[in-house]
Amino acid sequence: MTNNNVYDVTKWPIGNPYTDIGEVINSMIADIKSRQANTDVNDGGKPGAVIYLPPGDYHLITQAVIDISYLKIEGSGHGFTSSSIRFNVPENECADLHELWPGGSRILNDLPVAIDGAEEAGAAILVRREGDPRISSVEFAGFCIDGLHFVDDGSGEPNPENTYVNGKTGIYIASACDSFRITGMGLIYLEHGLTIYHADALTVHDNFIAECGNCLELRGWGQASKVTDNLMGAGFKGYSIYAQNFGGLLITANNIFPRGASSIHFEGVTRSLVTNNRLHAFYPGMVVLEKNSSENLITANHFLHDHEPWAPLQEKNNGLDDLYGLLYISGDHNSIIGNHFSEIIDAQYIRPLGAKPTIIHLVSGSENYIANNHAVATASHAKISDSCYAAQVDALLTTEVTSSLAVTTVLIEKESIKNTVLDSGSDEQVMMDKSVNAFRPTPQV
Amino acid sequence: MTNNNVYDVTKWPIGNPYTDIGEVINSMIADIKSRQANTDVNDGGKPGAVIYLPPGDYHLITQAVIDISYLKIEGSGHGFTSSSIRFNVPENECADLHELWPGGSRILNDLPVAIDGAEEAGAAILVRREGDPRISSVEFAGFCIDGLHFVDDGSGEPNPENTYVNGKTGIYIASACDSFRITGMGLIYLEHGLTIYHADALTVHDNFIAECGNCLELRGWGQASKVTDNLMGAGFKGYSIYAQNFGGLLITANNIFPRGASSIHFEGVTRSLVTNNRLHAFYPGMVVLEKNSSENLITANHFLHDHEPWAPLQEKNNGLDDLYGLLYISGDHNSIIGNHFSEIIDAQYIRPLGAKPTIIHLVSGSENYIANNHAVATASHAKISDSCYAAQVDALLTTEVTSSLAVTTVLIEKESIKNTVLDSGSDEQVMMDKSVNAFRPTPQV
Amino acid sequence: MTNNNVYDVTKWPIGNPYTDIGEVINSMIADIKSRQANTDVNDGGKPGAVIYLPPGDYHLITQAVIDISYLKIEGSGHGFTSSSIRFNVPENECADLHELWPGGSRILNDLPVAIDGAEEAGAAILVRREGDPRISSVEFAGFCIDGLHFVDDGSGEPNPENTYVNGKTGIYIASACDSFRITGMGLIYLEHGLTIYHADALTVHDNFIAECGNCLELRGWGQASKVTDNLMGAGFKGYSIYAQNFGGLLITANNIFPRGASSIHFEGVTRSLVTNNRLHAFYPGMVVLEKNSSENLITANHFLHDHEPWAPLQEKNNGLDDLYGLLYISGDHNSIIGNHFSEIIDAQYIRPLGAKPTIIHLVSGSENYIANNHAVATASHAKISDSCYAAQVDALLTTEVTSSLAVTTVLIEKESIKNTVLDSGSDEQVMMDKSVNAFRPTPQV
Repeated sequence: MTNNNVYDVTKWPIGNPYTDIGEVINSMIADIKSRQANTDVNDGGKPGAVIYLPPGDYHLITQAVIDISYLKIEGSGHGFTSSSIRFNVPENECADLHELWPGGSRILNDLPVAIDGAEEAGAAILVRREGDPRISSVEFAGFCIDGLHFVDDGSGEPNPENTYVNGKTGIYIASACDSFRITGMGLIYLEHGLTIYHADALTVHDNFIAECGNCLELRGWGQASKVTDNLMGAGFKGYSIYAQNFGGLLITANNIFPRGASSIHFEGVTRSLVTNNRLHAFYPGMVVLEKNSSENLITANHFLHDHEPWAPLQEKNNGLDDLYGLLYISGDHNSIIGNHFSEIIDAQYIRPLGAKPTIIHLVSGSENYIANNHAVATASHAKISDSCYAAQVDALLTTEVTSSLAVTTVLIEKESIKNTVLDSGSDEQVMMDKSVNAFRPTPQV
Repeated sequence: MTNNNVYDVTKWPIGNPYTDIGEVINSMIADIKSRQANTDVNDGGKPGAVIYLPPGDYHLITQAVIDISYLKIEGSGHGFTSSSIRFNVPENECADLHELWPGGSRILNDLPVAIDGAEEAGAAILVRREGDPRISSVEFAGFCIDGLHFVDDGSGEPNPENTYVNGKTGIYIASACDSFRITGMGLIYLEHGLTIYHADALTVHDNFIAECGNCLELRGWGQASKVTDNLMGAGFKGYSIYAQNFGGLLITANNIFPRGASSIHFEGVTRSLVTNNRLHAFYPGMVVLEKNSSENLITANHFLHDHEPWAPLQEKNNGLDDLYGLLYISGDHNSIIGNHFSEIIDAQYIRPLGAKPTIIHLVSGSENYIANNHAVATASHAKISDSCYAAQVDALLTTEVTSSLAVTTVLIEKESIKNTVLDSGSDEQVMMDKSVNAFRPTPQV
Repeated sequence: MTNNNVYDVTKWPIGNPYTDIGEVINSMIADIKSRQANTDVNDGGKPGAVIYLPPGDYHLITQAVIDISYLKIEGSGHGFTSSSIRFNVPENECADLHELWPGGSRILNDLPVAIDGAEEAGAAILVRREGDPRISSVEFAGFCIDGLHFVDDGSGEPNPENTYVNGKTGIYIASACDSFRITGMGLIYLEHGLTIYHADALTVHDNFIAECGNCLELRGWGQASKVTDNLMGAGFKGYSIYAQNFGGLLITANNIFPRGASSIHFEGVTRSLVTNNRLHAFYPGMVVLEKNSSENLITANHFLHDHEPWAPLQEKNNGLDDLYGLLYISGDHNSIIGNHFSEIIDAQYIRPLGAKPTIIHLVSGSENYIANNHAVATASHAKISDSCYAAQVDALLTTEVTSSLAVTTVLIEKESIKNTVLDSGSDEQVMMDKSVNAFRPTPQV
């Protein structure tokens, strides 16, 4: 049906891409495999194929399952638009809207919702292949996966579209994988945007992953990968970036906006970098290094924590109080160098009330090196707006007289020893046992 | 005329893409809109389309106007070549040249020149749509927009091709926009390469924008955007990157070469990052933070200031003297950490003559944190060459004995208090009121 | 044969792309040139063309030679898989493997092997054009070049596939070039992946270059270029990134894994950046600045040096002992700021036996600024495994009790003066003549 390994979903004789793109993709993969039967001779291999999705709305009611290497699925438009803003527009104003939905080369994940079901069953695209070698060089580029709606999760949230729960995933990679690429994608309104197990030499580059419960989850273990140059922002319960037992992960040049329970959350991650990211969050616990995450370098990041300005989500948060720290660390031998922290908070919202917020919190660990971090803290009157958009613009254009706020720039808990804190706060701002940790206060006037 | 939202300008029945690509694109957009009339039912939206420009020369005499979301315009070649060098080749040598013009998928902006006219009228591509939601996810990728010629601007410049003035713009985005992407583009010989108002979640990534009066201007206000991994260099009067009232802008991994009155110029920009860029300029004022630009992080950048080596542009500059600073700051709470500055200057060119050049200049502001910046200053004999190319190669391969030059590494003006300067110069090199600003000199032998 | 400058190798009447893609590409280029004869009038130029390689296996027995600007060669799959792991699988297990070869849009470099011949003769793609202007804006994107096999090099290596020698190159750019782009490529099993002379405004972005003798070599001289966001790893004798007489090179956001004699090796490179990279190597000499490499900024990098875990390559190394330094510098005025170093080494493997390993080694040079570097050193029992993959996973999931190891964090040789070392080790860890170099030890408890 094709003679050169190029497949176009709109020109395929099996199935209907507009009503079930999953069936179309699966039949293409079956075709690719049938054509590979006589290869692997004379250094000739199984080169794979490219499946092209022109701009269009493609409903998916059958999960697409990938079990061959070298498959590229490519579209011509990441198609992001803010469904969150749209779903909070009063019903009678919707008729005036230019568009109601995301666009581009868009897959509508219409899989049946099962918010307590097997996560993998809700994935628009599932990658799974066991055996050797690991599945390699699968690429996803330039299209949109839209989860369409969030649903009532029993939490009592008045607008179910604001729950960030729907049991749906964009792409779920279940098997160990090598040299995968995810670039230029748009992922929206999915409880899990991108879930990847056992990644090696993975590239997640230049995507737009937002209004998802969780954006990117790197699970199990993994190594030598990069998450770079993405725009991301998870829901209030989820992670923008999560990684587990990873070594050699490079997270750089990302612009991560709210909400996200954590912007970046590590468990047992070692010898990795979080550098050069713009991080903005409405709750503490922006970057969390847990379960002995060690020998990581956290440098040149800009942390901004301020208050949720949008009325419908005022009651949401991640449950952490302001003593938790914007950067929370449990682990050894990490380097925390040259980060900027802006803590902008209205005194009435500080929890516990009257507390002095924590910026960097080392809960346990030794021989961490914390140097040249600069924290700015101001007590600012939080403005709340019914319009998310108006609130944002207002914040950009208004200069307000604010007073400075007392914070603990570095808090090191008692069990931690042999850490070094340099030029990251005054003697009063750095709380630790200075007889067992080295300290040089930032010079004061 | 298409049944899958893929448009090829060379295969379209209306207009002639070679004589007026603008008419072709506009008729395609009209077609897309006519086909969207019956959508927006059953979660189905207005997915947009892709317009493909194969490699070719496409004259534009009608402005292309975009007022739909999810439109991608894509080419197969950014097509940059240095017109500046070419236009300064003696006429009798032109016959020997392999090419006279940029190439790739190239739009020739033939709009009538009006150097004092409405800027927007000179744009090859105009994006404008008011109402809700904001126009979203328009993408430009992989093609070239060429302004062709600069013109006599009345300044007396003997070669009008060196004025950087022609009233032309590449892409002008007039309305508030969300999640736009500009990637892999080439923009050349335009007075304004890319002008964008009210950007949210914008991506300007991996482009080549050079020999433009100004490369990228982010105007009005904007937020949560990234300008990453670009090659850029503006003309002597313009900005390589300009931003106004922006929050959460990430400018990283760019290689910004001369000339540019400023490499990066901020007005009222807050909580943004300038990190990890290579900056090369022929004039002071390389990075300017004005109008209370605050809480920004400027780190891990390499600043090189040396003298214009090319004969035709010897007389050009941005009018600033060497006391102005390579990095100029007016604002509070900024973090300036771990930058390298190379100041290479022939004593005869220092202005005012005999002055001690300034590296970091804090003209007003409090609680800025300036740490671990390293300035190298050498008095070097400037070589001037008729050939831009020869001058460059010569500079790479020649090691010259130079003497070190006395500079002020940090200058803080009198009205500024509570700033902190650490390890960024000796006591003699840091000029400020040390009774109201904190200071630790770089240790000396 | 085409009327819009778009060429598809599978639809071309001359030659057979599956048996000799080189002949097909060369005949396309001849066609492009014949069609350009009547251009360059009315501002109309020679726009070039795009040559498309669908996914497929394309043998190359004729070298492809490019001598026109604005040519883009593009595929739909970088196709990397680990041949190294595959070639070390026992023969009787190969029948069970899913794939035996890399894939995607794959060029099989079948040029005759001449391991002592002219390097350029072994290049799948050669770019060469002299005269003015320099050849510009050639682009390579999204395909794979596979060298297929390494060969017996007379070294006595029992498995010739592990020699990293075969006289083959992926792309060889012999002439001065401007604004070239190499993006999204896969390069594998080539003695030289990418060799580029005299580069200006080059982009090497987001590629996968691994299991090559050398990955990227920037030779002769060059300027104003970027090597960003790549996954790379050379063989035990070669460079992952090499640059010579370069100015203004930006190397950032790369994840460079073993083996590589050097991860990054500079000769006479000035005013360049190595920032924000993840570097992992099995030998000292990870980053080397030689031949008066000066005024460079090396910041925010994560260096990991540990022991080769894979049995077949236990005997390989780059011949350097542990006194050489992970970062080795010969040059002046460099800034070495805020890097993290993890040195993980089994005492039995330290060479010379019993020595104290060196982290940063300044062998000669003055006025270098070395600040805020954090070195972690642990004596760990090295585990060796027959399975490269198993070894990697094991390392990720095992936490082992280790003891800390004494190292020299900074060693400055005698001839070097006026350098500054701040907060980069204790008095005991920093070895230099402290009467001619400035020093502030990291505060100790």
